[in-house]
Amino acid sequence: MSDCRIVKGGVVSAKGFRAAGVPARIKYEGRNDVALIVADAPCSAAAVFTTNKVAAAPVLYDRQIAKGGRAQAILANSGCANACTGEDGLADAKLSALVCAGELGIDPSLVFVASTGVIGRRLPMDRLLGGMKAAKAAFGRTAKHGLDAERAIMTTDTKPKQACATATVGGKKITVGGMSKGSGMIEPNMATMLGFITTDAAVSPAMLKRALGLAIAKSFNRLVVDGDESTNDSVFLLASGEAGNSEITRGGADFDAFLEALEKVAVSLARQMAKDGEGATKFVTVRVKGARSVRDAERAARAIAKSPLAKTSWFGRDPNWGRVLAAAGYSGAEVDDSKAEVFYGRERAFGRGEIADARQLERLAAVMEKDEFEITVDLHLGKGECEIYTCDFSLDYVHINADYTT
Amino acid sequence: MSDCRIVKGGVVSAKGFRAAGVPARIKYEGRNDVALIVADAPCSAAAVFTTNKVAAAPVLYDRQIAKGGRAQAILANSGCANACTGEDGLADAKLSALVCAGELGIDPSLVFVASTGVIGRRLPMDRLLGGMKAAKAAFGRTAKHGLDAERAIMTTDTKPKQACATATVGGKKITVGGMSKGSGMIEPNMATMLGFITTDAAVSPAMLKRALGLAIAKSFNRLVVDGDESTNDSVFLLASGEAGNSEITRGGADFDAFLEALEKVAVSLARQMAKDGEGATKFVTVRVKGARSVRDAERAARAIAKSPLAKTSWFGRDPNWGRVLAAAGYSGAEVDDSKAEVFYGRERAFGRGEIADARQLERLAAVMEKDEFEITVDLHLGKGECEIYTCDFSLDYVHINADYTT
Repeated sequence: MSDCRIVKGGVVSAKGFRAAGVPARIKYEGRNDVALIVADAPCSAAAVFTTNKVAAAPVLYDRQIAKGGRAQAILANSGCANACTGEDGLADAKLSALVCAGELGIDPSLVFVASTGVIGRRLPMDRLLGGMKAAKAAFGRTAKHGLDAERAIMTTDTKPKQACATATVGGKKITVGGMSKGSGMIEPNMATMLGFITTDAAVSPAMLKRALGLAIAKSFNRLVVDGDESTNDSVFLLASGEAGNSEITRGGADFDAFLEALEKVAVSLARQMAKDGEGATKFVTVRVKGARSVRDAERAARAIAKSPLAKTSWFGRDPNWGRVLAAAGYSGAEVDDSKAEVFYGRERAFGRGEIADARQLERLAAVMEKDEFEITVDLHLGKGECEIYTCDFSLDYVHINADYTT
Repeated sequence: MSDCRIVKGGVVSAKGFRAAGVPARIKYEGRNDVALIVADAPCSAAAVFTTNKVAAAPVLYDRQIAKGGRAQAILANSGCANACTGEDGLADAKLSALVCAGELGIDPSLVFVASTGVIGRRLPMDRLLGGMKAAKAAFGRTAKHGLDAERAIMTTDTKPKQACATATVGGKKITVGGMSKGSGMIEPNMATMLGFITTDAAVSPAMLKRALGLAIAKSFNRLVVDGDESTNDSVFLLASGEAGNSEITRGGADFDAFLEALEKVAVSLARQMAKDGEGATKFVTVRVKGARSVRDAERAARAIAKSPLAKTSWFGRDPNWGRVLAAAGYSGAEVDDSKAEVFYGRERAFGRGEIADARQLERLAAVMEKDEFEITVDLHLGKGECEIYTCDFSLDYVHINADYTT
């Protein structure tokens, strides 16, 4: 039986990793904006990046690094996305990786770089590199070091995000820990975000890549904040091997145990991100079942989670379930409203032609008073199921995004 | 040369039509909510309906009527969508058409019904039919009658919408006039809205259907407010033939002249709807050109027009052009940011790797001070072009939609 469990911790909880976060005035005054994560030795590494055709310079750079399957450090900044910056931006990304490698005394092909923030501005290289040096001077293995790094990658996030899980793999205790940012522009393929996950399990690069893909499919790709997909989304996974298990090189019990811990961390981070969606006041799990296919279930759930009309009704605690069903209706999924049922929590809003009465609408509104609730649409057409994590659309979402650049 | 021009007028401007709008307390107190449009004799008729799988009862009913290609009256109400109301809702739609036909002394197969408002509530039949009778007692051919009808179909619209155009067809002056509603849930395939267009041109049902499809493709289908698609979208077109032109039964100069007038009316209504989008403070035309294909141009333009991040930045007059390009990037269209250019009005925000400087950003912000502006993305990859009408996402959008049902 699995002993996998969530524990307190983050990106420095696994053996072999240090981190730091420092203020470098990239954009903001008086807050951390440069993070450095460094492993004691070269690690197995895997990464997944945005599918946006307009990919930021660090993404273009990291795609090459990721091919090697090895990494030892990640240099990240907030305040500037280094996107739409052309050849110059790519040169900046490369130079920052090279200088970072030099400072750490490691091979440049082992350094990832990650940026998040405003699109279309050049990186202030002096500040970034100054920050990197300060981070190197400061880095360490305590919870405080992890928290400093978490804070440095925040943009409009209101809270740092960390998660950690332990499991037994091949008789050894292994730890998976991580941190992430990303509260607007969160969408699938994959969620617009930065994620940094470390583990002390020994896993081959190929199996690490496979595990990361599987974990993302169940976590960050289940996340919808506003339906926008960024130019910078990246999730990195580094495995130090210091737990001492015999290296996972194929599927089997060890891989499954490792994957379970990784998924727990990724799902926890994804849920934290939905809860901290820009201006979010409600964390909503949209569950579609009984769809003709899994693909149909996903289409319908994503359409509901993205619908501005549904999301604003959640903000207003308005049990306007018709908007939920209408979104399923235009999603491309097969929907027959004479068969479909809609639930808010356990309260039925609509079922096979039966409409909630005034008293029932009050019960739905009561469900929506909670900070977290679940909306379930049962299409009664098949066995397809999908769950998406999302949040409401509030006045603050508009406030935050009406005035972000300036 | 065409003498087609926009003139003042609406749904009763063409010869042979009368209209009325009356208060019937379907939902609102003290405002019109039942509209009736009646032709003096049976007309050629065409209609286009929502593609949402969850189609409202009146849509299901009207689809059958539309097959006949003839109609003489349209009974419409706001305040209740008669959607997700199952067999009972369908019976209500049918009954209201039958009673209306009886009252008017015409064949029931010549009556369309249309509803807009809250989903999942039964029509208050007594009020609707009382309203219909009052409307019949009140109807007439003056501008005031048209305006009364326009007001009766408004939901969250802040202004009634009408448009009229005249042209010469086969030596006769013809008139096309119309009215529409729809300020939230506006999206393609087709725009979520109700539209009622009348003409005194003589056009066969088949050619009327063709003209309506072509006109919608250039107008209502170019409209994006929030990306939601309703259960009730319908556009009706009735042709009385009283202009005395010889009936248009095939393509050619007469058809083209009629189509031009119809398109002018439809585009005018679509633009009025974008300007009156829920909470809209900015009317924005998104133009994508240089796309690899027309389909790519449309994908990119729609993604930009739907992007909550782009729309909130317009509201905030924040020249965050990166969000515009990022939306094109995830649209599925081919995008190469080393080639693409982005303009706000005539001001270049980004071009082939060159980023707007601070002074240029000020000029972009100045463009955004206007109530209407155009955003152009030139992808420089081909000849595909598409223009979409849309609006910003404001605090009022959230206010309006957080509390609609109640």
